[in-house]
Amino acid sequence: MILRDAVHGLVSFEGEEESVIEALMDAPEMQRLRRIRQLGVASVAFPGAEHTRFSHAVGAAWVMKKLIVRLRGLHDDLPFWQRVTSDRARDALAAAMLHDLGHGPLSHLFEDALPGSPHHEVWTERIVLEPRTGVNAILTAIDPAMPDRVAALVRGVHPLPYLAKAVSGTLDVDRCDYLLRDAHSTGVRYGLFDLDWLLRSLRFSPSTEGTAPGLAIDGAKGLPAIEGFILARLFMFQQVYLHKATRAAEWMIRTALARASHLLSDGLRLAGTPKAMVDAARGAEVKLDDYLELDDAALAVAMRDWERSLDRPLADLCLRVRSRTLFKTYELFGELAGEKGREEAHQVARDIARQAGKDPDVYVGIDVAEVIPYEETDPLLVVFQKGAPRPLSEVSFLLGRLAGQRLSRTRLIVAHELRDQVAAALATRNG
Amino acid sequence: MILRDAVHGLVSFEGEEESVIEALMDAPEMQRLRRIRQLGVASVAFPGAEHTRFSHAVGAAWVMKKLIVRLRGLHDDLPFWQRVTSDRARDALAAAMLHDLGHGPLSHLFEDALPGSPHHEVWTERIVLEPRTGVNAILTAIDPAMPDRVAALVRGVHPLPYLAKAVSGTLDVDRCDYLLRDAHSTGVRYGLFDLDWLLRSLRFSPSTEGTAPGLAIDGAKGLPAIEGFILARLFMFQQVYLHKATRAAEWMIRTALARASHLLSDGLRLAGTPKAMVDAARGAEVKLDDYLELDDAALAVAMRDWERSLDRPLADLCLRVRSRTLFKTYELFGELAGEKGREEAHQVARDIARQAGKDPDVYVGIDVAEVIPYEETDPLLVVFQKGAPRPLSEVSFLLGRLAGQRLSRTRLIVAHELRDQVAAALATRNG
Amino acid sequence: MILRDAVHGLVSFEGEEESVIEALMDAPEMQRLRRIRQLGVASVAFPGAEHTRFSHAVGAAWVMKKLIVRLRGLHDDLPFWQRVTSDRARDALAAAMLHDLGHGPLSHLFEDALPGSPHHEVWTERIVLEPRTGVNAILTAIDPAMPDRVAALVRGVHPLPYLAKAVSGTLDVDRCDYLLRDAHSTGVRYGLFDLDWLLRSLRFSPSTEGTAPGLAIDGAKGLPAIEGFILARLFMFQQVYLHKATRAAEWMIRTALARASHLLSDGLRLAGTPKAMVDAARGAEVKLDDYLELDDAALAVAMRDWERSLDRPLADLCLRVRSRTLFKTYELFGELAGEKGREEAHQVARDIARQAGKDPDVYVGIDVAEVIPYEETDPLLVVFQKGAPRPLSEVSFLLGRLAGQRLSRTRLIVAHELRDQVAAALATRNG
Amino acid sequence: MILRDAVHGLVSFEGEEESVIEALMDAPEMQRLRRIRQLGVASVAFPGAEHTRFSHAVGAAWVMKKLIVRLRGLHDDLPFWQRVTSDRARDALAAAMLHDLGHGPLSHLFEDALPGSPHHEVWTERIVLEPRTGVNAILTAIDPAMPDRVAALVRGVHPLPYLAKAVSGTLDVDRCDYLLRDAHSTGVRYGLFDLDWLLRSLRFSPSTEGTAPGLAIDGAKGLPAIEGFILARLFMFQQVYLHKATRAAEWMIRTALARASHLLSDGLRLAGTPKAMVDAARGAEVKLDDYLELDDAALAVAMRDWERSLDRPLADLCLRVRSRTLFKTYELFGELAGEKGREEAHQVARDIARQAGKDPDVYVGIDVAEVIPYEETDPLLVVFQKGAPRPLSEVSFLLGRLAGQRLSRTRLIVAHELRDQVAAALATRNG
Repeated sequence: MILRDAVHGLVSFEGEEESVIEALMDAPEMQRLRRIRQLGVASVAFPGAEHTRFSHAVGAAWVMKKLIVRLRGLHDDLPFWQRVTSDRARDALAAAMLHDLGHGPLSHLFEDALPGSPHHEVWTERIVLEPRTGVNAILTAIDPAMPDRVAALVRGVHPLPYLAKAVSGTLDVDRCDYLLRDAHSTGVRYGLFDLDWLLRSLRFSPSTEGTAPGLAIDGAKGLPAIEGFILARLFMFQQVYLHKATRAAEWMIRTALARASHLLSDGLRLAGTPKAMVDAARGAEVKLDDYLELDDAALAVAMRDWERSLDRPLADLCLRVRSRTLFKTYELFGELAGEKGREEAHQVARDIARQAGKDPDVYVGIDVAEVIPYEETDPLLVVFQKGAPRPLSEVSFLLGRLAGQRLSRTRLIVAHELRDQVAAALATRNG
Repeated sequence: MILRDAVHGLVSFEGEEESVIEALMDAPEMQRLRRIRQLGVASVAFPGAEHTRFSHAVGAAWVMKKLIVRLRGLHDDLPFWQRVTSDRARDALAAAMLHDLGHGPLSHLFEDALPGSPHHEVWTERIVLEPRTGVNAILTAIDPAMPDRVAALVRGVHPLPYLAKAVSGTLDVDRCDYLLRDAHSTGVRYGLFDLDWLLRSLRFSPSTEGTAPGLAIDGAKGLPAIEGFILARLFMFQQVYLHKATRAAEWMIRTALARASHLLSDGLRLAGTPKAMVDAARGAEVKLDDYLELDDAALAVAMRDWERSLDRPLADLCLRVRSRTLFKTYELFGELAGEKGREEAHQVARDIARQAGKDPDVYVGIDVAEVIPYEETDPLLVVFQKGAPRPLSEVSFLLGRLAGQRLSRTRLIVAHELRDQVAAALATRNG
Repeated sequence: MILRDAVHGLVSFEGEEESVIEALMDAPEMQRLRRIRQLGVASVAFPGAEHTRFSHAVGAAWVMKKLIVRLRGLHDDLPFWQRVTSDRARDALAAAMLHDLGHGPLSHLFEDALPGSPHHEVWTERIVLEPRTGVNAILTAIDPAMPDRVAALVRGVHPLPYLAKAVSGTLDVDRCDYLLRDAHSTGVRYGLFDLDWLLRSLRFSPSTEGTAPGLAIDGAKGLPAIEGFILARLFMFQQVYLHKATRAAEWMIRTALARASHLLSDGLRLAGTPKAMVDAARGAEVKLDDYLELDDAALAVAMRDWERSLDRPLADLCLRVRSRTLFKTYELFGELAGEKGREEAHQVARDIARQAGKDPDVYVGIDVAEVIPYEETDPLLVVFQKGAPRPLSEVSFLLGRLAGQRLSRTRLIVAHELRDQVAAALATRNG
Repeated sequence: MILRDAVHGLVSFEGEEESVIEALMDAPEMQRLRRIRQLGVASVAFPGAEHTRFSHAVGAAWVMKKLIVRLRGLHDDLPFWQRVTSDRARDALAAAMLHDLGHGPLSHLFEDALPGSPHHEVWTERIVLEPRTGVNAILTAIDPAMPDRVAALVRGVHPLPYLAKAVSGTLDVDRCDYLLRDAHSTGVRYGLFDLDWLLRSLRFSPSTEGTAPGLAIDGAKGLPAIEGFILARLFMFQQVYLHKATRAAEWMIRTALARASHLLSDGLRLAGTPKAMVDAARGAEVKLDDYLELDDAALAVAMRDWERSLDRPLADLCLRVRSRTLFKTYELFGELAGEKGREEAHQVARDIARQAGKDPDVYVGIDVAEVIPYEETDPLLVVFQKGAPRPLSEVSFLLGRLAGQRLSRTRLIVAHELRDQVAAALATRNG
């Protein structure tokens, strides 16, 4: 099969080994991912960010295919029992394709707002292992043990550590695809890196006694490629993933979901609410079939129905989200960004809300986002023609200066009508 | 204001004249376009085709802004009363932004399936003119006569014919943006053309006595740009707009809508159906507020509810669409593609359906798509430093050979389980 | 080995089979191609067109490598004796790399101006076969019969016709690379096509009895790719290869070379003239070593020296070329473009030159350029899952309308100071 | 006038103000830049790096034009006497176009090797000011004081400091163009940044009492653009400008030039040597006309003639350069990279050369390259809607970690036949 892909251009899966991808593509649980956007509400800030988890899943499988080609080009460095056999390749392709299967709409928000609700990783595993699903049937038909192997691989567990890390690690196929895809759809041109060159830069690090060989970077040719990859991620965090409008919209939706959940757990009925949400809110077990009915449209229609709820704050939040009357952010700097400062700032904002007759739990919030763009706890190694491998941060001028550094954004999130007042109250102390 | 756009990169609207765009962007009727995909169901064939009418509307306004810059660079060729004044520029920007405002989800399918339902152009005009809408309020605040002027311009009516054609013509800002945007999202790289060069290639044709000057192409520098533009459109038709999977999915949805409409007009209730659809189906007037509630999510949720309808064909169609079990196409060639041949082929297919116990109105259809990639009824003129303007098809090697040529695709659309039988029955006569 | 390439990004040659490319790269005859521009004097019109035949040779070898990967993916369609063995792959890679080896600076101009001088194809063959060259030594070291096989392949002769055509045919690796490379360097964005998709669109046509299988286009997926490829070539002809300034500069240089050659053959000495040119002009045999000393710098320095020649017209032409005081073109249309008309026009221009005291052989010329962008004498076939292969022009809407059509440009070339007078004299008859 | 540019696509200069560019383009001194490559010998490592200083000069003028558009969009922030008048715009365009006019082939190597030879900046100024040149005539025809103003601006002197810095500063039009152009030609995709967004990110910093306003970065929208710009430069240094093969080739040519110069100053004749070089070597004044005859072809032909010199080392170096038999590099790390260590390493290598019977001054060298990718001595300021401007390194996560950091490469350069021996002798101490 051969596909047009917006990011990779040509995507093809051919031959026995790759036929699993074509089969999985038509499974209803994969088709569901067509109805869930990859970046959730980020389209409030980037109108083009409408791409779905389905296109990303196919893209991740494609990157895995290219990675396997590269790994086989390096096979001479490995004992034969550590090579990518056809079975292992099929497992890896399937794992790349299915790694996000359990995501619901805005799934991180769901998981935060409905505390009892299982995480998306759990759902992924259930969908793969549950005998009634289309995905399970496809894998089982190939090999009855395949669902278990694929589920383990998605969790990052595999006899070949380098294969496990290719599914879930600092340099995995998931990241390779989503950085490029998110950049393509948002128009943020700094999220680009050179995938072909990056794959070509991979080498095996020599396995010292008793340890398995791992993937490493070629010191002679690969530095700019890996630097570009890590910078792409930093840029995407700075510009897209931590964008103030996105964070504000997410905060609003999370608050609405928590409020709806609270009302439901009190026994109220909220027309239009999907059954999976009702069950989760009430602490009942969520059935797989009900979970699979959740998608962006179901959530959008539920929130539209909630606009007519008798609970005024819930109705108001939903209406504001739909009409894009977003809350505003006020970034905290210096002392105010510290743990104590931010509490005080939050309190100031809550007081202002209260005086304006607005529920401070609904109209004011604090949002702390942190990321370490290049963490070296399990360092990528760089290998040279001669001499021992060295950690990437020692070799790279740029990454040596970034390793372990923490990027953080601390913001108050306030209804737009309160924004000026909050800013005025904190102006002298901020910065 | 300044925006990241996936296609144009940087999009900015600044100063008094362009402030209308920023104001319109937040109108709820514009925000609704965020929830309607530009290419409808084309994502069944091109997973990336998820971009919305909102991003296209902003893109069209941006192209209009660039066009106005170019027109003003050519002003010396015009008498002053034919120049783009600030008022005219504002009207043109607003018209570019609002030209698709009345579209519903899959609007062409709606218009076909619900015969009494007003066309999207009518809705656009109503939204602009109706005093209660956000869009109307914004325009009226600028100038009480502006809604009327903008509505006329969207219809292609303006004292300056070249401005009217820039909103709606062979070479309009709508087309300039959607070709690039659709190509970007689908990954179909042949839909690209060089927008900057195309705009720079514009000139005014000398106005002969009594006629208004029109936009023309610079014969010295502009041919490849306009050739590329028209070829881009041809390529997009061949690859995307007439794609067999898209056409099959459209046919299925149109059939489902018509069937639902029929059931509703018979007085049945179909849970989950938006009020606007119910009213339209029953011949009642559709209220603007109800129409504005229609979006892709509302349609998706309705079709999901219809999966539980007692009308088996309706339920079956909806289920197949959601799980992407699409009908197959069988293209007709030669004699069978003619008017008589296609009727016979349709009849053959209907018989096969009937014998298989399937309703032939639901499981078998005929789909004829035609387009003239470059029509020269109102020819684009090419101007030279010396000598009279000449029609584009006389000057262009390529377009001279394409002008007036008709591209057509005639296909049977049949449920996948009937496809082989239909193909076998027609094979000897086809080609 | 791994290279950055401006067009293809990453270019790598690895393993036994491809090592021939790395070896050939350092041969002095290959290094000479670094000093010869691919597009000759086209940089007078496109300042970026400075790329060399060396980068093109490497690019062509890279395309050949990708083609071989594709061919091997299709091997199941072939009997084993028709497959691309490792030896055949090596020959094909070498042929792709070496196909332009014999070009001198502006070689077509040389061949026209120095009638006795061997054509570049002859020089390519000599360099490959002559035992003293670096290229020959490298090939012979691999296999003493390799130089002969490679030379034959460059001439388009090989037991496998599909491999011969891949080196020299409608759809060969030479064209695939130069179209992309020339577009990249000139900035002419219409010369782009989708190489990956094109390669992926290749199939073998079923070999009917007694005939060898040929490469064909996949009817289901490949049409836009081959259409894009052929259009790219058309666009490059229209915009670059037949550009009026380039053609004028070429005409001037050809005239200068012919004049210098004439002077040399009369026994005059022209300081700075490379020995190969002197020998060619005097009808002596040109030695290979002397030929290999010819490159763009040698020609540039010779023409600079000729600026001080006592032959005034020669000195004047050289000075004008260096200072880019190019002759002007006056395109002929309609009747004047016909064989009789152009002779008359030429005569008119010659008379004007003569009256102005300018040698009409030097200051006035006629330039007729013709190309058939898609010739179907040996048609590309399109294959389908069912049914017989069909010629491309029958299947493609676009190419059906282009097949066999001739693009032509007929121009007078006149010294700029004569241009207005010539235009005035012909204006009423032209068009 | 309108041009195709490989980097910017469409380049146009129109109207009275910009007509200076079209006029300058045909000046013979500008045409000479067509014959001098921007990146000198970098094509030994990047075969595509053949672009000339001419295309860069036009590109720099184009960036200046775009910058002027942006500056005028910000004029409201300036008192009228500090605005870009039409005269100032013309001066700035001319300065951007002419800023590299005085470069010879590989000019930095010349300046190092021929100590008495004036630097390229001096030549630029002479060409602009000398009444006999084409450039001077064109500027003088516009305004007799224009040559002086343009020469001052090229030196970075102008009453408006922000305009001076736009010609020569951290963020000048020269850098903006060459980073993009060098990346385009080499295929090094990390050298890209978003020029449109960068220009759009410019603001004026509020001028505090007595100081002139300077260009600053918009804190709300501009950070990624300026970060991308500075990273692009870092990447180009790491990958291209300090590439080991380029540095080795430069070292060889510098050594050859110095040796030739030495021979010439001793009174020897070296056939083929351009007069400007002979004069410089002998301490005589170099005449402008002779200097203007220097270009890449002249140098290439001279070095080819020197291959037949009786001075064996000179002949050997020239032959190696032409056949790309480059010297090898051996990078020094740790202690060996320090001042003392490198001297010792150099001595070790010299001894090895001597024992092999090779002149150590010719066959062994030391090469230290250093650059500070982001120097904040004169910091770029970032401005916010509220609050004081802040230095870029305080605001940018990335640049805060890069500011003032020094990137250095210390390498031995040795004839390839000595490389293994040198590496073996130093291996235990390096790293």
